[in-house]
Formats: sequence, structure tokens, C-alpha cells
Amino acid sequence: MSEPLTLGIAGLGTVGGGLVDLIHQNGKHISSILGREIRIAGVSAKAKSEAQREGLANAVFFSDAVALAKDPSIAIFVELIGGEGGIAKASVEAALNAKKHVVTANKALLATHGVELAQLAEKNGVALYFEAAVAGAIPVIKTLREALSANKIKRVYGILNGTCNFILTQMQNEKRPFADVLKEAQALGYAEADPTFDIGGFDTAHKLAILTSLAFGTKVALDQIHIEGIQSITQADIEATDSLGYRIKLLGVARETESGIEARVSPALVYKDSAIAEVSGVTNAVAIDADFAGNILLVGAGAGAKPTASAVASDIIDIGFGFIMPPFVTPSANLKAHKRAKLDEHYGSYYVRLTLHDKPGAMASIAKAMGDREISLESIVQHRHVTPPAPGAAAHPAQHSPATVIIITHETTEESMRKALETIEKDGKVTERPQMIRIEEL
Amino acid sequence: MSEPLTLGIAGLGTVGGGLVDLIHQNGKHISSILGREIRIAGVSAKAKSEAQREGLANAVFFSDAVALAKDPSIAIFVELIGGEGGIAKASVEAALNAKKHVVTANKALLATHGVELAQLAEKNGVALYFEAAVAGAIPVIKTLREALSANKIKRVYGILNGTCNFILTQMQNEKRPFADVLKEAQALGYAEADPTFDIGGFDTAHKLAILTSLAFGTKVALDQIHIEGIQSITQADIEATDSLGYRIKLLGVARETESGIEARVSPALVYKDSAIAEVSGVTNAVAIDADFAGNILLVGAGAGAKPTASAVASDIIDIGFGFIMPPFVTPSANLKAHKRAKLDEHYGSYYVRLTLHDKPGAMASIAKAMGDREISLESIVQHRHVTPPAPGAAAHPAQHSPATVIIITHETTEESMRKALETIEKDGKVTERPQMIRIEEL
Repeated sequence: MSEPLTLGIAGLGTVGGGLVDLIHQNGKHISSILGREIRIAGVSAKAKSEAQREGLANAVFFSDAVALAKDPSIAIFVELIGGEGGIAKASVEAALNAKKHVVTANKALLATHGVELAQLAEKNGVALYFEAAVAGAIPVIKTLREALSANKIKRVYGILNGTCNFILTQMQNEKRPFADVLKEAQALGYAEADPTFDIGGFDTAHKLAILTSLAFGTKVALDQIHIEGIQSITQADIEATDSLGYRIKLLGVARETESGIEARVSPALVYKDSAIAEVSGVTNAVAIDADFAGNILLVGAGAGAKPTASAVASDIIDIGFGFIMPPFVTPSANLKAHKRAKLDEHYGSYYVRLTLHDKPGAMASIAKAMGDREISLESIVQHRHVTPPAPGAAAHPAQHSPATVIIITHETTEESMRKALETIEKDGKVTERPQMIRIEEL
Repeated sequence: MSEPLTLGIAGLGTVGGGLVDLIHQNGKHISSILGREIRIAGVSAKAKSEAQREGLANAVFFSDAVALAKDPSIAIFVELIGGEGGIAKASVEAALNAKKHVVTANKALLATHGVELAQLAEKNGVALYFEAAVAGAIPVIKTLREALSANKIKRVYGILNGTCNFILTQMQNEKRPFADVLKEAQALGYAEADPTFDIGGFDTAHKLAILTSLAFGTKVALDQIHIEGIQSITQADIEATDSLGYRIKLLGVARETESGIEARVSPALVYKDSAIAEVSGVTNAVAIDADFAGNILLVGAGAGAKPTASAVASDIIDIGFGFIMPPFVTPSANLKAHKRAKLDEHYGSYYVRLTLHDKPGAMASIAKAMGDREISLESIVQHRHVTPPAPGAAAHPAQHSPATVIIITHETTEESMRKALETIEKDGKVTERPQMIRIEEL
């Protein structure tokens, strides 16, 4: 047996704690695979009390993560602090400069400073691995970086945020409104007190930025991603799409088009009988369309202490075997600039929900706006909501409230759709902003 | 740039041809990742005419695969001949003995001689990789070997044979009988003229033998797998399970129990709203339950020239990066013996379809046989088939044909089920052998 594989773990929160538990529980198994002992040599955390944990009896406590990162006793620095800068970035840089391998679960750090950190890792001949940064236990980084490395990737897309998928699933299954389900998600600990980062699509965008870079060999470019959240999704959308044979999912999608990379986070309609439509609750899923492999779908736990620890540990074991490759497969010097495709050039089908004033000619006006942009319609359904008289009120004829029109278009460009909907809004026939959701062909 | 990564490809059939196409088409991409040229230095095939193919202009033709395997011009020997012995085995052994890395898509070779070949590879310090041997483009070998290597695996199961899944999907979607759909599969080239290897479950068993070894660190033991095919599945089963909320899939399942490894290939009921139930046609899927990662599902193309070539190429690129590990992760000297669990100890729910003589007391006799074995029933439904009078026949009362009884049990042991059904058969109340299908909890 050669000398132990020594780890320095910075951060003992959910993921750090999970990793300590994993090594405590499965350390012998890992050591038997590697042919040498795996050992937690040092840890750092905000408070020393966090290190009072089974499995850490022989680990040296560091109050300073940077000091841990540079300490000669460790071979691999595991950054589980989080945050795009600050101590997380400083300690990762310190470790790489000290020629230590780095494993991190920090999507924000990678999505904002991924390329410069990759350069630093490559310069120092060490690994910078981040399987846990995207989709928890799902081995999507390894699949893109290794399993599909012989392929040209056409598209990568997925359900990358468990909070949003939980909310959309509950809205679907229990016919409850968005705000109500969001409160439940907060009570269950799936959503933060300020849920904007999740439901606004920003968390998904961080992960998509990393996947985009791996899939297309481009520089990480978080600021080039189009982001829409799920706040606008109503029970009316859930019910209408259900009856048309679809589910609504918050998808991160990146594909290479003739004009550049189209990378977007937004609600999307997927066919109800597709495997990704069945991905419910906090589960994540990532699909990859590749020129030779075809379509690969990976489904699993996207968050949580144990699944995330599993992903961190797989990176550690790879390094233990001596498997060192550039963080984004393509050497960072060769990563292409991320050229953003015009979203207006997106070509696909759309779901549209309009709420119409009860005025004559409203429907004709909509049909004309679509026709003028050469958008042909696959289906158009109008429901008129009839408000029954209030209980106890004097009997009188039921009131007509605004009518809802649900449209599914054939394939068209986003520019045509956008302009048609602008015309419809200007015509004053709708009571609120039209809802428009892309249909994702799987 | 260091010296080229040189390949010797033995076998230019579907997969071999696909690999040549892949390297011809994506070779520059692969070379840019590896930082050195990838080059097909030599090929072998039955007839030299097979090597008249774009991408092979500079490859030397060998009529003897063993000579190619030993040739000093190649670094990696790619065995795509097929078959558990003969020239495939001889050439792989020759390559390993000549200290050349081996990549193969040959499930039969691995399922029968995997351990001895792994020993040979380890002794010579070279790789023996076989991602393409199981589930085509789905990176299940890499996921078990690397992504989940920190985990203890509880169960691995999947849809591993596209032919069977195509037949079951068509029976479901088109309400057509087994024999009819099998003919269609043969016409489409999905099934062989002699379909036994596929529909009898043997192909799935080969793949399951390999997955079992990787998942549990045991010696490959094809002969320890319980095998049932899909020949007994009737349209009556498809319809009954559908109405109860299930789909029938041919699953390979391996799990570690207290008494040993339970590895079985058989039709199984899975919930209709599970992601694996939506895996239709020739698509494959593999699910893994792991102690830390949780449940991971991988879905993709299980066969075909391009997907299989993608898997072969991923192994080649790993070797090009210098990633060499024992073929079954666990060094072959440490692989445990495969201790077979008694299938009678299998604990789960069952679907049973009985066809009863129209005799008084038949139902009571069934209920007693189940009750005597302490099998409690979740549901029991009896349909009496009424045969309408033949057209043109003289009017007479409809004939009663045998009644069908569909039972879903609560969890029980396989031994109890088997004995209860034996009793029912002996009682003479059934017109044919009872159909019994395990329900797989996902």
C-alpha cells in the first residue's frame, strides 16, 4: 500500500458533513478500490465546534481555509464553503498555486471564475473537478467530459433546480396556486426565505453556464444566458397544458446554432409521455443530444447531503487514481469565446395563453396578428369563465368574466411570436400580458 | 504534440464500421482533446473488401486479428469481432500479453471470461475496458466504476434488451399479440431469425452478469443468474396490468441480500408513472440504487452502430488520457465469489393471472390456497369472457368460456407464491399454468 490519500475539507455544512459521513462509513471500501488509505487530514469551518463530528477525530482543525489549502499535510483540497468569491475563491486559488488538486461543489465560483481557475489548475498540473456543482449525484460532468467526449454535442438540457420542479409538480398534482405551493416548499426547507435565486431561474443558469462550457468547448459565460423564472406560471397554465398533453418544467437548455450558442433558462412544455415529464418533485434530470451517442437522459437526486457527497467523493477517487484532465476537457487556452445566438432566431412551437376582454372582434384580432406574422396555429381553444352569482346575492344572470384563449402554434421564430404578441397587446384586446411558453422538442 | 494514439480495430461489422466513421468524422475533435492525433493504424476483418471504407486509407489490413493484436504499430487493440471464445478471445489475450490496452464491445466474452481477462490485463498493467458491452451509449460502466465508486450499491436493474422492449411496447400500444409483434421486429431487423437469445432473456443475462460484478465486487457469474424470457406474456397480461396502473418490462435485476446476490432476468411490473415505464421501443435504461447517491436512472440508445461506437471511443479516449484502472474497479484478485441468494427468499408483491374452469368453488379454492400461505391480496378481479354467438349461427344463449382472475398480492416470499400456485394447479381449477410476474418496487 502506498501512502494515504489525504484530504483537507473546507466547510462542514450540509455537503461537508455529508462527505465526512461518507468517508467515515465507506472509507474502507474506497481504500480497497484505491489500494491506499483515504484520510481526512485537516478541516476548516467557521466554528471549531462543527468539527466535533464522528470521523474527524484525527483531522487537524484550521480556522483559516487558506491555511488549510496550503498545508503540506494534504494532497486534495475540498472546497465546500460556497459563494462566488471571498474565502472560497481565495482558498481554491491558494490550493492550486500550492499544486494541490481541488474538488469543489461550488457552482457560483465555477460559473463566474471557471476559466481563470481552470487555467491556474492546468498551469500547476493539478485537477480542478466539480461533479457536485451541477445536479448533485447525477454524473453529468463526467458524462459530458468523458463518456461523450468523442461526440459533438448538439444540445444539453435539463431540470436542474429541485425547488422549481417541486413547485411545478405540486401545482400539477394538487391543483394549488403558485404562492401556496411556494410556502409549502419553504416550510419543507426546499426553498429559501428569499426564493428568488431558485424560482427566478438563477440557480439553473449557474449550472447551465457550466454545462454549456463543457458541451461546446466555450468559455463559461453566465451573463450570456437568457433567464426566465417560474413566477408567471399559473394554475390556468398547468391545467391548459395538461389537457393538451404536456407538462411544464423549468428547463435550462443550451444548443449550438448557426449564429452561436442559444443558452436559456425558462419554463418549457414537454410531452407528458416523455421520460423527462415524469421527473417529479425535487429530482433533477439532464438530457444530452450527441451526434453519435444519440439522446442520453440522466435522472437522480440533484441536492442533499448524501447525493452531493457522493459526487464530491467520485472526483476525489478519480484524482486518487491519477486521472487528471483539464477541468473543461478542452484545455482552457483553447476554449472558444461564447458567441450568443439571437433568441429572436429561436425556431420552435409555442404555447400562448391570452385573457381577452369580452369585446367583439377580439378573436379575429388575435388571428390576424398571428396570420400577419405567418404563424400557423396547431390548436386554439377559447374558454369563457362564467362567474356564478355570489351566495346570498339576489338572483340575476351569471356574469361573463374575461375569456381565456389557449393557443399552440406550429414552428415559427421567436421574433415572429414576440411581435405578434406585441401587436395583440397594443390592440387592447387583452386584460393582462400574454403568457408565452416555448415547447421543447425532445 | 506527443506521438499519435494508434488503434488496431478487429472486426469491421456494424460497430467496427461505426467506429471508423466516428474517427473519420470526429477525429480532429478527439485529437484536440487528447493533445495528440488519434490514428487507425491497422484493421482486421474476414474479407479485405470490408476495409475499402472512408477513413481507412492509411490503415494496414491484417487478415489475422491475433497478428494485429500483437503488432508493434498499435497501442490500443479494439476487439469488435464478437463471440465468447474463438478469435475474439485469442486476439484479446494476445493483445494483453503484448501489453496493449484493449477496448471491446463483447458482452459474451466478458460474461464468460471476464475475470481471467481482467487478471491478465492487471498483470500486464494495461486497461481492459468495455463500456460498449452493456446498454450501448449509456455510460453505465463508467457510472458504476467511477461516478458511484464511493457508494455501496444496493441494487442495479434495467431494460437492457431493445428487442424485448420494442416487442412489449408494441404489444402495449397496438394491442397486438406477441407472435405478431415478434414478426414485425424481425422484419425491422430488431430481432434475429432465431430470436431466442433476445426474447429468452439470455442477452440481458450477459449484460446483467457484467453489471452485477461491477456493482457488488463479485466474480462474473453468468450461470448464477435466474433467467425468464418474455415469451409467456400475453395481450391479457398487457391489458390487465395496464388497467391496474403498471407496465410490463423485461428487467435484469441484481441486488445484494442477506443470503447472497439475487440476480434475475424476468418480466416485471413497474408503475406506469415511473420514468422507467416511459422507456419505450428499442431504448435501454439502467437504474442504480446506491447508499449515498440514491437512485440514479440512465436512459439512452442500447444498440446501433453510432451509439455503440460512441461508447467504444470513450474508452479509447480514457486510455489516451492514461486513465487505467482494474476492469471491474476492484482488483480481480479481490473480487468475491458470487454467492447466489435463494430466489425462494425473494420478498415482494406479485401479479398473478389465472384462467379458471367454470366450476363452482374455483374462486374459494384460490383464496384458500393463498390464505394458507399467508399471502394477503391487494386486489382480485374476475372477468368472465362471454363468447358471442358466431355470425350467421342460429341464435342461442352466449357461451361461457373460462374466467380470468387477476390478482395483485401484498408483499410475500417467492416460496409462498410458488407453493400457493402449485396447490392451485393441483386442485385442477385452472385450465392453464398460472402466470406469475414480480412487481419491481422502484
